[in-house]
Amino acid sequence: MAMKLPPALQQLIDAFQILPSVGPKSAQRMALYLLEKDRLGAERLSHSLQQAMNKLDHCKSCRNYAESDLCPICSDAERSTESLCVVESPSDVLALEQGVDFKGQYFVLYGHLSPIDGIGPAELGLADLKRKVEQLSIREVIVATNPTVEGEATAQFIMDMLLEDVVVSRIAHGIPMGGELDLVDGGTLNHALTGRRVMS
Amino acid sequence: MAMKLPPALQQLIDAFQILPSVGPKSAQRMALYLLEKDRLGAERLSHSLQQAMNKLDHCKSCRNYAESDLCPICSDAERSTESLCVVESPSDVLALEQGVDFKGQYFVLYGHLSPIDGIGPAELGLADLKRKVEQLSIREVIVATNPTVEGEATAQFIMDMLLEDVVVSRIAHGIPMGGELDLVDGGTLNHALTGRRVMS
Repeated sequence: MAMKLPPALQQLIDAFQILPSVGPKSAQRMALYLLEKDRLGAERLSHSLQQAMNKLDHCKSCRNYAESDLCPICSDAERSTESLCVVESPSDVLALEQGVDFKGQYFVLYGHLSPIDGIGPAELGLADLKRKVEQLSIREVIVATNPTVEGEATAQFIMDMLLEDVVVSRIAHGIPMGGELDLVDGGTLNHALTGRRVMS
Repeated sequence: MAMKLPPALQQLIDAFQILPSVGPKSAQRMALYLLEKDRLGAERLSHSLQQAMNKLDHCKSCRNYAESDLCPICSDAERSTESLCVVESPSDVLALEQGVDFKGQYFVLYGHLSPIDGIGPAELGLADLKRKVEQLSIREVIVATNPTVEGEATAQFIMDMLLEDVVVSRIAHGIPMGGELDLVDGGTLNHALTGRRVMS
């Protein structure tokens, strides 16, 4: 049922709904919460949004977000140039940085090959990837695209492109730690079996 | 694990966490989503936040949010002045407006009596409530504060204050529609029993 709200409130509720998994009820809660309890926080959020959209661009080296030419990871001289990890999105970099102690380089594709959507090697910046691998004399490229049909195709394409210059590896797919065998899907089980390793 | 993000991105992720039920993971997802997929939406959200915080103040009559002296409901000449519904928060007004066809007036307390937190009749604007009831010659005041100890105490206080001038009623408490008797708590069951009505 349409109800007459003050326009500024209605617009704020509408604007919150652009966020992922925020529906009308959550948007309303967020708007009223800020108005009632945290007007300073709202100013801060507004300012941060402005700043982030104005300042953040793609790192010239890995395409992740950066405020200057290079992102904090690419400009960190202490990181190894031995290996480079290719991922589909910036959130994958965050997950890897928070979860494992990989200290090499990254390259962010922002998606996967998807001819039907007009996403080819150019859109994924694969020429930049090749250049980066050559310039830094990377020895191993770890392809960590998602284990979907498109992710696998993208991994294959990258392998074909780089195979002459470097070792190209694919992250392992299998049963997640703490997972239970009988709850895992057939495709994953297949990967887990074919990817088995001799115990020593 | 602390990781070095571009400051503008880190600040945006932090700022999103002021929102109710948004933790670090959701905040990160929101920030990256806006950067990747909806920069225009981010500008719009930033602008809407600014506008809402600048423009919205309390309605002089019902204390709900308004852009001018009176909110859309109080300035609607077609609404009845027969009855007035007292609620704890603006979201209660939204719920009532969306769910029922009450066409009377409202008054928003922004909380309930809570001496321990320094919230007394003055903080809830009860003098304004009394004045509004007199000025509009309201006949019935429906107290729809929450069925908590504080909400009940507040309802009692309002009744004592207004009883000389108008009929004061309390919304019914009982089994929710579609609810099941054996899943309802004892307090609600008690209310449902004492509030029983003769069927006709």
